[in-house]
Amino acid sequence: MRLSQMLFVTLREDPAEAEIPSHKLLLRAGYIRRIASGIYAYLPLMWRVLRKVSQIVREEMDATGAQETLLPQLQPAELWQESGRWETYAKAEGIMFSLDDRQQRQLGLGPTHEEVITAVARDLIRSYRQLPQNLYQIQTKFRDEIRPRFGLMRGREFIMKDAYSFHADEESLRQTYAAMDQAYRNIFRRCGLQFRAVEADSGAIGGSASQEFMILADAGEDEILYTEDGRYAANVEKAVSLPAEAIASAFTTFEKRETPGTDTIASLCEFLKADPTQVVKQVLYQAVFDNGKLLPILISIRGDQSVNEIKLTNELTRRAADYGAKTVIALTVPDAEALKKWTAAPLPLGYLGPDLADSAIAVNESIIPKFLRLVDPTAAELQNFVTGANEVNFHVVGANWETNFPKPAVVDLRTALVGDRAQHDSSQVLASARGIEAGHIFQLGLKYSQAMGATFTTENGTEEPLWMGCYGIGVSRVAQAAVEQSYDKDGIIWPVAIAPYQAVVVIPNITDTEQVAAAEKIYADLTAAGIETLLDDRDERAGVKFKDADLIGIPYRIVTGRSLKEGKVEVVQRASKESSVIAVGSVVETVQDWIAAAIV
Amino acid sequence: MRLSQMLFVTLREDPAEAEIPSHKLLLRAGYIRRIASGIYAYLPLMWRVLRKVSQIVREEMDATGAQETLLPQLQPAELWQESGRWETYAKAEGIMFSLDDRQQRQLGLGPTHEEVITAVARDLIRSYRQLPQNLYQIQTKFRDEIRPRFGLMRGREFIMKDAYSFHADEESLRQTYAAMDQAYRNIFRRCGLQFRAVEADSGAIGGSASQEFMILADAGEDEILYTEDGRYAANVEKAVSLPAEAIASAFTTFEKRETPGTDTIASLCEFLKADPTQVVKQVLYQAVFDNGKLLPILISIRGDQSVNEIKLTNELTRRAADYGAKTVIALTVPDAEALKKWTAAPLPLGYLGPDLADSAIAVNESIIPKFLRLVDPTAAELQNFVTGANEVNFHVVGANWETNFPKPAVVDLRTALVGDRAQHDSSQVLASARGIEAGHIFQLGLKYSQAMGATFTTENGTEEPLWMGCYGIGVSRVAQAAVEQSYDKDGIIWPVAIAPYQAVVVIPNITDTEQVAAAEKIYADLTAAGIETLLDDRDERAGVKFKDADLIGIPYRIVTGRSLKEGKVEVVQRASKESSVIAVGSVVETVQDWIAAAIV
Repeated sequence: MRLSQMLFVTLREDPAEAEIPSHKLLLRAGYIRRIASGIYAYLPLMWRVLRKVSQIVREEMDATGAQETLLPQLQPAELWQESGRWETYAKAEGIMFSLDDRQQRQLGLGPTHEEVITAVARDLIRSYRQLPQNLYQIQTKFRDEIRPRFGLMRGREFIMKDAYSFHADEESLRQTYAAMDQAYRNIFRRCGLQFRAVEADSGAIGGSASQEFMILADAGEDEILYTEDGRYAANVEKAVSLPAEAIASAFTTFEKRETPGTDTIASLCEFLKADPTQVVKQVLYQAVFDNGKLLPILISIRGDQSVNEIKLTNELTRRAADYGAKTVIALTVPDAEALKKWTAAPLPLGYLGPDLADSAIAVNESIIPKFLRLVDPTAAELQNFVTGANEVNFHVVGANWETNFPKPAVVDLRTALVGDRAQHDSSQVLASARGIEAGHIFQLGLKYSQAMGATFTTENGTEEPLWMGCYGIGVSRVAQAAVEQSYDKDGIIWPVAIAPYQAVVVIPNITDTEQVAAAEKIYADLTAAGIETLLDDRDERAGVKFKDADLIGIPYRIVTGRSLKEGKVEVVQRASKESSVIAVGSVVETVQDWIAAAIV
Repeated sequence: MRLSQMLFVTLREDPAEAEIPSHKLLLRAGYIRRIASGIYAYLPLMWRVLRKVSQIVREEMDATGAQETLLPQLQPAELWQESGRWETYAKAEGIMFSLDDRQQRQLGLGPTHEEVITAVARDLIRSYRQLPQNLYQIQTKFRDEIRPRFGLMRGREFIMKDAYSFHADEESLRQTYAAMDQAYRNIFRRCGLQFRAVEADSGAIGGSASQEFMILADAGEDEILYTEDGRYAANVEKAVSLPAEAIASAFTTFEKRETPGTDTIASLCEFLKADPTQVVKQVLYQAVFDNGKLLPILISIRGDQSVNEIKLTNELTRRAADYGAKTVIALTVPDAEALKKWTAAPLPLGYLGPDLADSAIAVNESIIPKFLRLVDPTAAELQNFVTGANEVNFHVVGANWETNFPKPAVVDLRTALVGDRAQHDSSQVLASARGIEAGHIFQLGLKYSQAMGATFTTENGTEEPLWMGCYGIGVSRVAQAAVEQSYDKDGIIWPVAIAPYQAVVVIPNITDTEQVAAAEKIYADLTAAGIETLLDDRDERAGVKFKDADLIGIPYRIVTGRSLKEGKVEVVQRASKESSVIAVGSVVETVQDWIAAAIV
């Protein structure tokens, strides 16, 4: 392609709308243009990158036997009502755009396709003989984000590959899940990206096991905890670890102590000469279910630890049915205003004990008049601990579970921290990295098939719900994440496998017929050799052309400059900026060798 | 691909929801599944067809130098307000789905992209040096159809290729328009389709010249009029022709005659012993503009002719500004109810003359108190004609324009008919065919660039609006139209170029190890030779497999049946049903030759 004929406009200045480097660079280098908040046009260069990422995804999916399909973007509300997700996705704070058609029927714009594919499977899959199946699509999705930002990273319209598998049993699901894990590793590797597969939370999608693929980058929104031995990596939302060991408590006798002005762990420990690892602190939460009920929650956790709200939300989701609800729609730490609605008298905050009476909660129609009591293992295993006495300025010391307090259900709720010891090997310490979530695979289990009645006939003739998995990759996010991972002060450094073009031939001076002729010949030769090549034949200064070539990040640049007199051209590698002067006749072979070495 | 592993379900019966053969066949053969009215899932076989059509489109577009891009599907209302189309597209009877985001900002779901691309061009194109440009995308579009039907033919979600070109002058636009015309002919030819390029109406898109590409099929919604010499073809909405020659009138004196009970052309002609070609009849219409005003229209046309409402709508759109409006939103023949709002006294219907007084219209706020008077050339050229006297039971005879009646503006408004003589050669007669509109190219001119301020700096330094063209192909419609054009009682007959697979190897009896081994070998050999092949290794009866192979329409079938004992297999061509028995060793070469011969 000749740059003189391409719709190609670069900007000198960083656009004001962009916050992170990759977003700035894609705008400056003419890859994308903003049409509305979180909505972008992919210009020709960007579209080539997206097509290359898609093609790598397609090849790896096809290699596993998955079948490509395309499902509708407009989805009838009825399907989402069947799965029970319409309320959380399309209403209130939901992230699904919804609309009415001319018949006043409700439709949603697909952010994901579990419902549609389950309806298709319900229709088409009748027998175990048709199983397993794995269907995928590469498609634009929609999310009505609260705060669209970072360009393609968190857009309202974005390209996803999503796959859905169906199985006769859990073992078959596990096999496909493992195949997808491998396919995803292949995809990110082939795209030329540094990534990490991590244990993840399943979120609103539901299901049991799930794993995220994080593209490592400093501007990543996600924090990953991992061990150097490579045997453990997890999203901080999900990570587990061994906390620092508790120091044995010196309080061997249970007694109530006056502890004036000690409503923080620090002040309490200072007053009692105790260590935070000897304290059981109580934390209050308030959950709101989809049936409108508020649930007050009392969590006991060790004094030096903090609650991971994602883990807590998951626990509440598992327990939703106990409260006549399907799901949790909000989880908050109740503020003074909220507490007024709970309680008649003010609670002794900072002095709460694990036995805070249910009667502390005002019986109010919207409130479930009993605490959900949970204890984190860090607190559950303490002996002779310090904790609140449910009275301002008083604590108890030397307390023990069951002897002094009934022990609530034990649930892992703590936030793992950098520096924690790993569970698999206590000599390994958790380190932290930032990443961009670019893929996520889930074992959904029976959640959707049961809700929507997608069953099959087993070999024994019984009717059972289909086992399901789902597997997503953010194609447009991968493209931008590649830039976030790989750029310098001059611009983008594309991995060769997904660069829009592999080479650019620059004519420093287009009035020099010798330069033009040589460049045209090299351009034709490279193109004929199957190398995707740009020819910068614009009537611009050489400096502008070099700057643009660096900015758009084409891996290999060939310059038909001064050395042409000796039958040579300059070749520059974008990533290393290494430059050499080689014979015109060896350009094709040199670039071919470089590409072969760069593409894995 | 092995059919045993594919999500592949055929139906024995025609689905009740389908009306036309192609829709029935695509459902029965497992290509598509309905998710909601006018909304379909493309199953794996269908998706392969759609990808093949897309790839042919892409190659032909790229060959013209057009650049592929992807524009957003969600489009801000502001852009459509700039072009003035929001009211007609998103409101009232509009076909654009619209919705509000969480910030209560209005968005439309793109049925087309003139506005978005013009906004992009306004941003990126500054100078004549950047011109011409032609950008295209292949994308799912949305239309809130009043009556979605015929499967993918008129869906609410469908795949389009749309391209938009930008130019410094009209001549450059004409060149790209011609290149697109040729590219479209190449595309339909390469898809293996019988088609006709026809003159077309520009409709709501606007602009001057436009041409449609019709895939010929009996179930087509469009009527085409064409001449056998191949020099003329047009959509009936747009077609022109020479009407039958008028018989010279014998009424040489102008006089009023009592003509009792002659409120039809037939009864009038019988009474006066006149010919319909000697009569000027008056037809009333009522237009509603986007500003809410009603315009009464009085059209004079020859007695044997009828008004083409598309031509009339176009004329009104051209005149909208005269009435303080941007566009026409409805055109109807006023019924008795509507006429009551126009007139104080009943009009002498059946006896109207070209001089029907403006005072016949009640001055009513919503009505423009003067007729728009137009005369079709068929009536304008008559002499000594018969026409109404504006009095029940009375006509005038021997009338002439200007002498007896002022002559209104002459505008071509007549409907061309089968059997009319062609304008380019009166020895050619118009014939009729039915077609499915699958492509449409437009010279838009300055309509969008002027409305949205998309200008460029000319070589002389002046600022001028960009000249624009737009070019669409209905990719999903092409795929279904191919079926509508090519099927038989047993199923689909895909053109080889867009068949989901080129060959299917059928194992009649999968318990016969010799059959299985031979089939596996042939399957492997065909696949290795780059021939897209299905292997029907399902545990089904041979009859079921043959029926399915015919139904899904794979061009070449190889059967490892009885003749295997002699080292031979049966090969069957789907289109002709010709069957032959050939040596196993020559299967690959035979199929390769067939494919090479079939793909143009």
